[in-house]
Amino acid sequence: MQQIVECVPNFSEGRRQEVIDAIVAAIAAAPGAQVLDTQTDADHNRTVVTFVGEPEVVLEGAFQGARRAAELINLDEHSGAHPRMGATDVIPFVPIRGLTMAGCVELARRLGQRIGEELEIPVFLYEEAATRPERQNLADVRKGQYEGIRELIASDPAHAPDFGPRRMGPAGATAVGARPFLVAFNVYLATGDVEIAKKIAKTVRHSTGGLRFVKALGLLVEGQAQVSMNLTDFRRTPIHVVVEMIRREAARYGVLVARSELVGMIPQEALLEAACWYLQLDGFRPEQVLENRLFT
Amino acid sequence: MQQIVECVPNFSEGRRQEVIDAIVAAIAAAPGAQVLDTQTDADHNRTVVTFVGEPEVVLEGAFQGARRAAELINLDEHSGAHPRMGATDVIPFVPIRGLTMAGCVELARRLGQRIGEELEIPVFLYEEAATRPERQNLADVRKGQYEGIRELIASDPAHAPDFGPRRMGPAGATAVGARPFLVAFNVYLATGDVEIAKKIAKTVRHSTGGLRFVKALGLLVEGQAQVSMNLTDFRRTPIHVVVEMIRREAARYGVLVARSELVGMIPQEALLEAACWYLQLDGFRPEQVLENRLFT
Repeated sequence: MQQIVECVPNFSEGRRQEVIDAIVAAIAAAPGAQVLDTQTDADHNRTVVTFVGEPEVVLEGAFQGARRAAELINLDEHSGAHPRMGATDVIPFVPIRGLTMAGCVELARRLGQRIGEELEIPVFLYEEAATRPERQNLADVRKGQYEGIRELIASDPAHAPDFGPRRMGPAGATAVGARPFLVAFNVYLATGDVEIAKKIAKTVRHSTGGLRFVKALGLLVEGQAQVSMNLTDFRRTPIHVVVEMIRREAARYGVLVARSELVGMIPQEALLEAACWYLQLDGFRPEQVLENRLFT
Repeated sequence: MQQIVECVPNFSEGRRQEVIDAIVAAIAAAPGAQVLDTQTDADHNRTVVTFVGEPEVVLEGAFQGARRAAELINLDEHSGAHPRMGATDVIPFVPIRGLTMAGCVELARRLGQRIGEELEIPVFLYEEAATRPERQNLADVRKGQYEGIRELIASDPAHAPDFGPRRMGPAGATAVGARPFLVAFNVYLATGDVEIAKKIAKTVRHSTGGLRFVKALGLLVEGQAQVSMNLTDFRRTPIHVVVEMIRREAARYGVLVARSELVGMIPQEALLEAACWYLQLDGFRPEQVLENRLFT
């Protein structure tokens, strides 16, 4: 089966369309790279590109995007509502199919080394690719932003980059890492009582004692109580475990689940695992899905 | 999204490996055709090939297979345990993705016409492609087999082919049709009492009053009661409806479902539909599956 990696680079440009177009074109020019989505925010002055392909293809696309961004974006002239430290601010690799997180960590290190050496941009490895525990959290890595890190990078050992020079040019610094796929998933309850959604969110989310890879909030959306979630590692905390826990909690308050919704994309594996769990389908192999046998 | 058709031609040769190889090679030579499986049975003296591709590709592969089979197989010299009427005995088209049953019926008619005109082999359209109700069932079309149909084809209006001449050469006649994907699916009960599996099979199968597109038998497999099924149209009788009905019936006898198993392949859609049903995932679109966005 073909190996597929997703890459979601964030660039510090959300206003000059010609710059955004040039960066996306540089990524798409990597043979085999497929750009799935480009989201631009003028207030944040930031663009998030989602593209996929085989590992080597994605590595090349990410490098070419970072190279073009360094040519076209000057952090000394950049302002926006979103924290940032580089022209290419952050590059996460996400394993989709046929490779492990370790494979994506390896990709992150190789890309970081290449950006550091060839573009002379300091690179900090983060999340699963982090070389120090205090660099796992992106917000910690980016603390002080472009202006603050520029002051400290040469002198402060805590700010020594993993690759590249201990000085920052107008392209700033880049965080390169690996993380699981993020699923945005909401469950609507058959009630208008937002307090029930809030109580359930508190029970299922990690921060208040719930499931390890769930972030959740209780909201009122068009008069209906909603448990709004980010599932940050669907392989370790599967969707069906989350849904069944919400159903059980909702019943405690005399309420049923009305429906759920998926925001954006999801890897096939996440839904197949739910199907197998509910159908008690033991011994299922992904190769049994006819489409997975095509063009491999 | 790319259109995908499955084609499962049956050839009347299960002993001479060089003939089987030549036919499979003729199919695989159609650019873009992908042979997924070849099953040969020497007792039946028959080979079943499963291949997939875009509609025009599959049409070409099926024609080339039939052409080669007509050159290499002589029905006057053929004997085997399985009923047959032609060198290429039957060719069903199965819609997998991006096209409807009507699209596969159209493919069947075009292939039938081409086999009739270019190979001068009589063709009978069957199942969803049938032009007469009495030709929907393949067993009815093939009644009398090669030897019997050869006698009647010129004179009997009921045996007039849909395409090709009203005479049969040593390549016999071919049934060409369209049908839904067949899912082979078994549910094991947490009991060794085969009578319970038999009662449940009777309740869920179409022939004795159950679900429209379910064939079922109750069996004892390695000491465990099993409801063994063919789901003949998973779009109209979805898998989760079958599983939930079996769970409910089993509970009536104080028994739980232990596990289920899938024999062979399944289209992605069948499992995604189950996942969406159990998760109550409204508004889901297949394009939200990341892999479905690749190389389309």
